[in-house]
Amino acid sequence: MEKKSRESTGFLIKQRAFLKLYIITNIENGRWYGLQLLDELRKEFKPFGFEPQHSEVYRAFHELEDEEEILTKVRIKVEGAKRKEVVVYKIKDSEKAKAYKKLVKLDLERSEQLLRKAISDNF
Amino acid sequence: MEKKSRESTGFLIKQRAFLKLYIITNIENGRWYGLQLLDELRKEFKPFGFEPQHSEVYRAFHELEDEEEILTKVRIKVEGAKRKEVVVYKIKDSEKAKAYKKLVKLDLERSEQLLRKAISDNF
Repeated sequence: MEKKSRESTGFLIKQRAFLKLYIITNIENGRWYGLQLLDELRKEFKPFGFEPQHSEVYRAFHELEDEEEILTKVRIKVEGAKRKEVVVYKIKDSEKAKAYKKLVKLDLERSEQLLRKAISDNF
Repeated sequence: MEKKSRESTGFLIKQRAFLKLYIITNIENGRWYGLQLLDELRKEFKPFGFEPQHSEVYRAFHELEDEEEILTKVRIKVEGAKRKEVVVYKIKDSEKAKAYKKLVKLDLERSEQLLRKAISDNF
């Protein structure tokens, strides 16, 4: 799987995969559309010293749509406003979404083990 | 601290800091010199899917010597061989070594918490 080799090249899980996981889960839970998720994720991760960049989240959405084909865009008309619409995402293929999450879970667990090993080996 | 901001830019701990930690601990324990450590680390991390590259380990040694000033090179004559010597490293400043390890420990723990959060939020 080409994707996998790009996203877990050995050391810890890549930020992109981590963000994609959160995006999928949020959309599965019927929340969020598009880049508004960015602010929410930033708030949530801030206590952990992590502030994802707009460009990273943007690419994560893009790949989930065009490469993994897990998400699809929907254009929604904003009520009352002529010719105004917003772009939201929904799950296009829930089986693919599940399979992707499963892979990311393995990589999260592997990464956690590597960190624990380092703590126990060095302290 | 310039170093710190380069090594923990937000997401998970950087590979470079992770390798430096192992290098310092190995040298503190009276083992190892220079790049022979690479093979040992590779063997140890392989079950976790991580195989550090020569260039990464090389840079880690280099930075510990020239930037952090924690290590220093020693040239040792190989017995019996004329004009043959090997380069080994030893701790130059053990206080700096301790302080560096302390920072890396915090970053390891922070990273572990972030991974755990992701597992608990998404599964």
